[in-house]
Amino acid sequence: MNIPPSAPALLEALRAAVGPAHVLTEGDLTAYELDWRRRYRGKALAVVRPGSTDEVAAVVRACAAHRTSIVPQGGNTGLVGGSVPDASGRQVVLSLQRLHRVRSIDPANLTMTVEAGCVLQAAQEAAAQQGLLLPLSLAAEGSCTIGGNLATNAGGTQVLRYGNARELCLGLEVVTASGDIWSGLAGLRKDNTGYDLRHLFIGSEGTLGIITAATLKLYPQPAARLTALAALPSLAAAVDLLQLTQARLGAGLTGFEVMNAFSLELVAKHFPQIPRPLPPAAWTVLLEQSDTESTEHARSLFEATLEAALEQGLIEDAAIAESIEQSRQLWHLRESIPLAQAEEGLNIKHDISVPVSRIPAFVAETDAEIARRFPGARLVDFGHLGDGNLHYNVQAPEGADPAAFLREHEHEINAVVYDAVVRHGGSISAEHGIGALKRDELEARKSPVALGLMRAIKQALDPEGLLNPGRVLRV
Amino acid sequence: MNIPPSAPALLEALRAAVGPAHVLTEGDLTAYELDWRRRYRGKALAVVRPGSTDEVAAVVRACAAHRTSIVPQGGNTGLVGGSVPDASGRQVVLSLQRLHRVRSIDPANLTMTVEAGCVLQAAQEAAAQQGLLLPLSLAAEGSCTIGGNLATNAGGTQVLRYGNARELCLGLEVVTASGDIWSGLAGLRKDNTGYDLRHLFIGSEGTLGIITAATLKLYPQPAARLTALAALPSLAAAVDLLQLTQARLGAGLTGFEVMNAFSLELVAKHFPQIPRPLPPAAWTVLLEQSDTESTEHARSLFEATLEAALEQGLIEDAAIAESIEQSRQLWHLRESIPLAQAEEGLNIKHDISVPVSRIPAFVAETDAEIARRFPGARLVDFGHLGDGNLHYNVQAPEGADPAAFLREHEHEINAVVYDAVVRHGGSISAEHGIGALKRDELEARKSPVALGLMRAIKQALDPEGLLNPGRVLRV
Repeated sequence: MNIPPSAPALLEALRAAVGPAHVLTEGDLTAYELDWRRRYRGKALAVVRPGSTDEVAAVVRACAAHRTSIVPQGGNTGLVGGSVPDASGRQVVLSLQRLHRVRSIDPANLTMTVEAGCVLQAAQEAAAQQGLLLPLSLAAEGSCTIGGNLATNAGGTQVLRYGNARELCLGLEVVTASGDIWSGLAGLRKDNTGYDLRHLFIGSEGTLGIITAATLKLYPQPAARLTALAALPSLAAAVDLLQLTQARLGAGLTGFEVMNAFSLELVAKHFPQIPRPLPPAAWTVLLEQSDTESTEHARSLFEATLEAALEQGLIEDAAIAESIEQSRQLWHLRESIPLAQAEEGLNIKHDISVPVSRIPAFVAETDAEIARRFPGARLVDFGHLGDGNLHYNVQAPEGADPAAFLREHEHEINAVVYDAVVRHGGSISAEHGIGALKRDELEARKSPVALGLMRAIKQALDPEGLLNPGRVLRV
Repeated sequence: MNIPPSAPALLEALRAAVGPAHVLTEGDLTAYELDWRRRYRGKALAVVRPGSTDEVAAVVRACAAHRTSIVPQGGNTGLVGGSVPDASGRQVVLSLQRLHRVRSIDPANLTMTVEAGCVLQAAQEAAAQQGLLLPLSLAAEGSCTIGGNLATNAGGTQVLRYGNARELCLGLEVVTASGDIWSGLAGLRKDNTGYDLRHLFIGSEGTLGIITAATLKLYPQPAARLTALAALPSLAAAVDLLQLTQARLGAGLTGFEVMNAFSLELVAKHFPQIPRPLPPAAWTVLLEQSDTESTEHARSLFEATLEAALEQGLIEDAAIAESIEQSRQLWHLRESIPLAQAEEGLNIKHDISVPVSRIPAFVAETDAEIARRFPGARLVDFGHLGDGNLHYNVQAPEGADPAAFLREHEHEINAVVYDAVVRHGGSISAEHGIGALKRDELEARKSPVALGLMRAIKQALDPEGLLNPGRVLRV
């Protein structure tokens, strides 16, 4: 391993900054060095665990003085290899996990201020204890952190109503590349005093600054939440159903997930114990309604809306959950798709978005091209239709070796999918970010003007290239 | 006047870029050179009116080649002197007014793409023709433009539900300082492919790039809109009423405006013909509800909610509009406050925000300090309480000469107000921006780290300082 000559002096400075117990250099550091999908394994010079914002700033200054680059890390649950060190053994992993306090909740302002290392679920629970809702929700919520959610602009299942992590953030505290602290934790819904630094740091994946705390929007808890499942003849019908339900339920529509037939076949195959209230259909939609009045009100609205959809021929059948337990089961069905895929074997994942109106054409064209070029390949299409976001995944043909299929065809299949995405005015990373995984795809497909602006900003805010180098942009 | 030696060559290049008819150098250019509040009168070298994005780019390149700075201008309705040239006679005003097309509306994606010079009201009407709602609404909507709305991140009366202009924008087309075109007009609700350039240009007041078009979010038109007025004993009660109505109406609450007693006294004095459905109270709140079901449903929800507020002692009296005409009249009452103020004479305006929970303390403390230091000064406090945004305005004492009062005390009164704002974690410009008017206040009060980051970004994106120099930041 290639240890830089200044390592001992840097480690000394880091120990002085955070205390020797919080500078890890030995033992099993896999939890910090290996990403969640096990595709990126690096080697850190040290894992540093500061306990305060001042300590984060001191760590950054020490690293800057020794020209050592920093990989900020929250829950390390990202899907694009953005939070683990490279293999050089020269990078410092800066873990935010000890900054996990909920600093304050202001019910009258509907805000909470939490530190970056606070686990999303802990933040949700702290809000719920005050009768309030932090409406960011995603599969990793039990271990992902608020800092990581903001650094990657996390999405999830309630974006349709409440927006991405970005839309839920009113203020930030950030340590800059020079080790200064920007204290921008305002709980203001209106503030037009200069450039929006907040939105620049959000989604920058730790390459422009290190988020140490955030002020988040909260909402009153809805009085009721109700879930329904609908069977549809086509994806075009799903787009029409979305329009219909948006008009009738307004902001009450908090979830609208689509699943193709094969997604649910896979769930039935690998998890036969999960109840399936509707017979197989070309497409199945899960709808969630949140209501400020009552379960009865939500139910009668749902019934009238689905009745209208039935009359218009948009849906073939529908079932409204009769209980909270049934609602949970419907979500469980939806959330079991990625797990069923994993049981079926390795697959090629895409997290894409196109305008909602283009989804049917995108899927029809891309399905056809994949069928033509990779006979037998099986498509697991599901996702957040309300946001135009599909997890458009490709599974090897029945009986084929998934690993071999992936090795041979991943690059080509990515090209088919991403070319179609660009043709339909979409994004090659809707909610997962760029990290290391999609950096070269981004450089190949993003407009040179946008890339030039991004590079100018990176150069302006991190001129030495110390913050998460090689992620999002090439060094 | 100090005309630069290269002026003839530049004018030649501009005429070549946009056609001689669209390079104005003679005649009455007051509409372009004087701001709406008539506080800033400049002198342009020329007013250039490009007709396409390519022409905007050509104008920028011509100006860059001649090191001539550019003042982008939309409807010229701003309140902080951000869109008129300085007095040097060396700046080019780039008017976006000829770029006024609605390029497209996508009902299934709930988006519209409009050019920067499109008047807000025209965009609203184009959406309404498709049965859709563009929920940006402000007093200047008949003449302000989408480009200006985004460049200044406009607010208005529906921010509580739909957010600022920023939150309504999904994509931008921008001409950079080097005359390149960034085509970022995606209609995507999820796109995590690199730094959020969109949010950097929004609110940058034409100092980082020139917005030429935008893709905006649309919403289904609500089935009903209903307005109510409530009389309250205190501002603290108004904050409690806000919490109560947010919990009961959820996203249905689309307006929550407060007015102090003196605001409505001024309206009664100068516009006695406007009906006032409630007797005078310490504070009056206007509530607006938008409902996806029906007027009847909205009314019964309003009645139950206001009944509960009455029982809790939060309100003393309330009136729900009986018709659309009555709803209009209630809004008219609220919107007449600035006009009544103008009738009463010059006054010292502040557009501030603090966390909603701090509003009562902020107003109590600041009212008391102004009463103590400027005996007889009259406070016109009103605004968007739901966003923590008050127009906290100070009128000269009864019988005093308003102009003399303003001349003598404006600076000192600003200091009292802005010091209190900073003490309460607020913003000295909630929705109007910085422009020329508040630039020095911003430099004095914003954190040096934030200012340093802003300067680095300005330097990165506009190294020659050609775009609206001296606005937001000192040159």
